[in-house]
Amino acid sequence: MNRIVTVGREFGSGGRELGRRLAEELGYEYYDREIIEQIAEHTSFSEEYIHQIVEGRRHRLYPITINHSFNFTSDDHARIITSVYEAQSEILHQVSQLSDCVIVGRCADYYLRDQNPYRIFVYADLDSRVRRCQARSDGAGQFTEKEIIRHIKRIDRHRARYYHDTTGQTWGDKRCYDLCVNTTGKEIKALVPHIAALLREADEP
Amino acid sequence: MNRIVTVGREFGSGGRELGRRLAEELGYEYYDREIIEQIAEHTSFSEEYIHQIVEGRRHRLYPITINHSFNFTSDDHARIITSVYEAQSEILHQVSQLSDCVIVGRCADYYLRDQNPYRIFVYADLDSRVRRCQARSDGAGQFTEKEIIRHIKRIDRHRARYYHDTTGQTWGDKRCYDLCVNTTGKEIKALVPHIAALLREADEP
Repeated sequence: MNRIVTVGREFGSGGRELGRRLAEELGYEYYDREIIEQIAEHTSFSEEYIHQIVEGRRHRLYPITINHSFNFTSDDHARIITSVYEAQSEILHQVSQLSDCVIVGRCADYYLRDQNPYRIFVYADLDSRVRRCQARSDGAGQFTEKEIIRHIKRIDRHRARYYHDTTGQTWGDKRCYDLCVNTTGKEIKALVPHIAALLREADEP
Repeated sequence: MNRIVTVGREFGSGGRELGRRLAEELGYEYYDREIIEQIAEHTSFSEEYIHQIVEGRRHRLYPITINHSFNFTSDDHARIITSVYEAQSEILHQVSQLSDCVIVGRCADYYLRDQNPYRIFVYADLDSRVRRCQARSDGAGQFTEKEIIRHIKRIDRHRARYYHDTTGQTWGDKRCYDLCVNTTGKEIKALVPHIAALLREADEP
């Protein structure tokens, strides 16, 4: 069985960087939300599937995607959302079969629980997260601190809801993870080799 | 300034073993509840102090212990408890001045917050904690699983209340710690060198 590391993270905590560096350190494949969504977009069954969701038409879903099929109705929004999750779950299972990997986000800790992943959660104080956002080169510098805080809180609310809707568990609850890392005042790059050593230890029989 | 590591832990999670081994690994002094209480008992001011509490007499407390003095009254239980905490805080500050150290429990993460301690919280699934208790050589083997669970929950309720009363924070809330380690299915001994490496990293300027 391939070794799977999952990384949940608060927005601005550096969790994605930690996941990416961890994959490099371990020589594992790396996946995050963007990559999973790209795979979904370029997979033949899911092109049709996404099209159905966008159009909102009554349509028989592709059975492989959701393991069962049903018809959309106008009041079936919750079931559509569930189907999106199930499509992502299917992709997560597929990539987890290919090689050892680090997966950031996507409730991978829950979906791949049968594969005994090493589950990390990355968090930080709000101030630290604001500063990390401001230091990014993606244009966050043009926003005020107040705007960045509002954005952080909005994204985290969304993640918490997504995680709870999918797993029935509380996002960021330490019981859902093997290791919770507070990155406040820490350099991600420096932490990674030691976290890698910790989870290699967990892999030992 | 000496380097301080604090370890909060759920009962049966192996947190004390982790703290002790971490101290060995780092070459730091080690303190836990028993040791702090022994120090309190053998400190001249606190012998008198503890005697007062046991006797429940009206008495002027030793000023060094509590930084101010007042008289006991029959309805002053909360203030007595506060004074016990303050005596422990005083001892924690004293030992933290002596050398680098690992301190298990006693809300040391909170009391010594001005010294920027590296704060660890150790936890585990209930099943894992029961098994760890059963494997101990201190006679836990004579109790039924149900009795051990009841004991675990009682101790943890007490710790949670003690932590909350002292700090105003929630015991085990990951925001209060730098690292939260789930020991379910893990061997403490194997984790320690990597946790030591992580916190050495945190000490780097």
